[in-house]
Amino acid sequence: MPVRLLNPAVEVADTLLRGVGQVMFQNNPITGLLFLVGIFINSYKYGLTALLGLVVATLAAYLLGADRTLIRNGLFGFNGVLLGITLSVFLEWDWHVAVYIILGAIVSTIVMMALAKLFVSWDMAPLTAPFVLTAWLLLFALYQFGHLHPTKLIHPMLVHPGAVIQTDLQEATGGNGAVGWTATNLANAWFRGVGEVFLQDNVWTGVIFAIAILVNSRISLGFALLGSALGGLTALALGGDGVTIYHGLYGFNAVLTGVALGGLFLVLNWRSTIYALMGAIFSAIVFAAIAVALSPIGMPALTAPFVLTTWVFLLPAAGFRTLRRISVAEVRTPELTRAE
Amino acid sequence: MPVRLLNPAVEVADTLLRGVGQVMFQNNPITGLLFLVGIFINSYKYGLTALLGLVVATLAAYLLGADRTLIRNGLFGFNGVLLGITLSVFLEWDWHVAVYIILGAIVSTIVMMALAKLFVSWDMAPLTAPFVLTAWLLLFALYQFGHLHPTKLIHPMLVHPGAVIQTDLQEATGGNGAVGWTATNLANAWFRGVGEVFLQDNVWTGVIFAIAILVNSRISLGFALLGSALGGLTALALGGDGVTIYHGLYGFNAVLTGVALGGLFLVLNWRSTIYALMGAIFSAIVFAAIAVALSPIGMPALTAPFVLTTWVFLLPAAGFRTLRRISVAEVRTPELTRAE
Amino acid sequence: MPVRLLNPAVEVADTLLRGVGQVMFQNNPITGLLFLVGIFINSYKYGLTALLGLVVATLAAYLLGADRTLIRNGLFGFNGVLLGITLSVFLEWDWHVAVYIILGAIVSTIVMMALAKLFVSWDMAPLTAPFVLTAWLLLFALYQFGHLHPTKLIHPMLVHPGAVIQTDLQEATGGNGAVGWTATNLANAWFRGVGEVFLQDNVWTGVIFAIAILVNSRISLGFALLGSALGGLTALALGGDGVTIYHGLYGFNAVLTGVALGGLFLVLNWRSTIYALMGAIFSAIVFAAIAVALSPIGMPALTAPFVLTTWVFLLPAAGFRTLRRISVAEVRTPELTRAE
Repeated sequence: MPVRLLNPAVEVADTLLRGVGQVMFQNNPITGLLFLVGIFINSYKYGLTALLGLVVATLAAYLLGADRTLIRNGLFGFNGVLLGITLSVFLEWDWHVAVYIILGAIVSTIVMMALAKLFVSWDMAPLTAPFVLTAWLLLFALYQFGHLHPTKLIHPMLVHPGAVIQTDLQEATGGNGAVGWTATNLANAWFRGVGEVFLQDNVWTGVIFAIAILVNSRISLGFALLGSALGGLTALALGGDGVTIYHGLYGFNAVLTGVALGGLFLVLNWRSTIYALMGAIFSAIVFAAIAVALSPIGMPALTAPFVLTTWVFLLPAAGFRTLRRISVAEVRTPELTRAE
Repeated sequence: MPVRLLNPAVEVADTLLRGVGQVMFQNNPITGLLFLVGIFINSYKYGLTALLGLVVATLAAYLLGADRTLIRNGLFGFNGVLLGITLSVFLEWDWHVAVYIILGAIVSTIVMMALAKLFVSWDMAPLTAPFVLTAWLLLFALYQFGHLHPTKLIHPMLVHPGAVIQTDLQEATGGNGAVGWTATNLANAWFRGVGEVFLQDNVWTGVIFAIAILVNSRISLGFALLGSALGGLTALALGGDGVTIYHGLYGFNAVLTGVALGGLFLVLNWRSTIYALMGAIFSAIVFAAIAVALSPIGMPALTAPFVLTTWVFLLPAAGFRTLRRISVAEVRTPELTRAE
Repeated sequence: MPVRLLNPAVEVADTLLRGVGQVMFQNNPITGLLFLVGIFINSYKYGLTALLGLVVATLAAYLLGADRTLIRNGLFGFNGVLLGITLSVFLEWDWHVAVYIILGAIVSTIVMMALAKLFVSWDMAPLTAPFVLTAWLLLFALYQFGHLHPTKLIHPMLVHPGAVIQTDLQEATGGNGAVGWTATNLANAWFRGVGEVFLQDNVWTGVIFAIAILVNSRISLGFALLGSALGGLTALALGGDGVTIYHGLYGFNAVLTGVALGGLFLVLNWRSTIYALMGAIFSAIVFAAIAVALSPIGMPALTAPFVLTTWVFLLPAAGFRTLRRISVAEVRTPELTRAE
């Protein structure tokens, strides 16, 4: 929990860094700082757009008069971080994109509060839904606007029931890298899965993110790594595209689902552990499903699979005797919750 | 209402059979048994996958610690039944499909409890939405997974505003069967509409299902048959595809909507009867609408039209003086409700 | 507020005219009458189908037993008005369309009450969502029904990331009209944006609508005109299609969003004014986004962008100290609210 700090500049920095940390539910400025380091190591551009989204979204919450404690805990920053990175990943850079990020970051703060109010009677968190909804609307629109240019990551496709999928784990089809279950390939899939939570397709960024989580919670790190592994393995078992798996795209939603259900929103015990891991597995399938649903317009699933799976797995908790929910207002690290 | 039975094995069988009966809101083990007979008569494979989904979904509810009375009433079985059949209808059989059914059945139980908690303040039932959502996610994903192979029923299509639709009622275009409003064709459309509630495209299965409903409630049977007739006739009147109508695909959502609104969730009187029949008619149009929305990815509407129409028609009841809702917890047969 | 009138025929006319006025939240029979004049000036057909939808939707509310005060305020008429016009704009005229409008108008009243009950704990209005949902379902279905024929406004398209968009403001590509930021072109975009709220692509209709709003509220007119201007300018700034902008299609959702957020559901002050105008800007982007999402099946966005944006911007109000919501039951003109 953040305390009142003497120096206002430090307080602002602390708030912003917690905002970065909250992307993975880590209310810890050091974790946030290390996340930023991981992003900048991969790409200065993504680092700067993450900061732009973060600052604008947090400032909007302040100017609109949101609850100060929520702002201080970084709860109005994380959607802006993801939004800033996402728009710069899927749009060619241009000053229009900067304006777009600023507008989107403001709207993400409004959507955050809207969902918080919408869910209040179920005691459910908006998770990264504000980012997903805002980013989807802004990205869908790009086909109608001549001043916005999509990057090559946007490619609409018609599905074909008989299409062949190459299932060998590898960096790129026809590339020089090793093919199949090599240690390198598996390590890449595993840590890129952590990196892709922030859309960073970089194994070392993933390693830094893992260290960043460790600073705040061993249990969260455990579920993050288990999630990434299970997401990738689920896709491998079902015959998913090997290049997609290598780059961690089946992992990142499972990372977030694992962390959210693993001792954070549910009291940790062996049954809730199995439940959390089943959620991580299911989120990898939901990722494939949402990717298919969006394929005619070529749009990315983002973290929607995590949001959908986690809501579905948290809502029933009061109805299942084996599970116990932790109230949104009382979420801390899994370690602190267990110590009570 | 199920009572405590002396023999645990009988109690388990009773629970499971009620789960089958609940697909059409019939909390009656004999009805459930006859439904199973109807399915097995059409196809052993579908019968066995129905049982697999049923057992796993019910067992998951038990292991997660759901309310025993709800389990005993079969409320955690029916989504599993439909999910098991659906995945074996739209996927080529393979051990991956068995794993997929097991995973899906577990998730259907989680979604069932999630929606029950979500709707509690409106006193609304999840209906078959847990089945629809889970099946959609699992089916959408198949395009991304090389080890899952769709059957020929999955065929993505681009819509064309000027496309010609053949509106003659017949078994198959260019087949040898009679064409048009013959007694045989109409009887097929009518009873296959009942059979298709469980995805069984078989006129005799439809007849057995009708008998099964009659065992529990004459009124429900009346609305099921009226629903199937109105669904098919609506499509005929608007110029729907004659082969689709023959195979009962415009009927099954109208069957379910008719049964749900006909004395089950609404107190029966002549106004609510008209209201229920209007719901049945509208559900046939919603079926066409959802089929179109899903056509670019070639996915089936399942019972989503029924779910959507019934929610929309039940929610306003407290606001319309002519209608009176029956609380979800007090739903019985229409006959028992009237007798009060 | 309507009062009890001596003559029942006058009372019915008053009720129906308020229903037309409520399309833009103007609970005033003179405004409603002028709206009708504007529609008939553009097209007798649209005027008559608007009346058909209006009468059927209002009558359905009466027969189902909805609250009389709500009916008297026109709250069960406006969705019918829009539905009637929309079906006659997107479907070739035929008696099937008349039946379709009657069925749709009845359903729009049911959906209106359903959403009112659904939103009661958030004190949120259904806005034009009943119209949007009902019209979408009825329009999507047309591809499956041979007796319904779409007009040329329905044209499914596959998106292409690199497609060139012509951004010059003009009446028609390759037409004789002036090209670019001429006073005529800008005036057309501006007032057609107001006209398109009722799907009337006519600059004079837009002018009459503006006068109609002025009769009831200067503030609403101000936000309507600001909304239309901002919607069009947002599209111009981002490089939207110049012909689409000329015909007011980027304006109408921004008009409605501006009116709803501008002193009507939020207490007017300078911060809520900026907030409302930001909503108007965002709704223009949401319009593009929803148009893209629906492009594979060629369906129109209707007023969904307004509904979505306004819900998202109203829900957080209690969480932002700078904003103050006006309860749905206490909505009047912005002028009357300020005078308190």
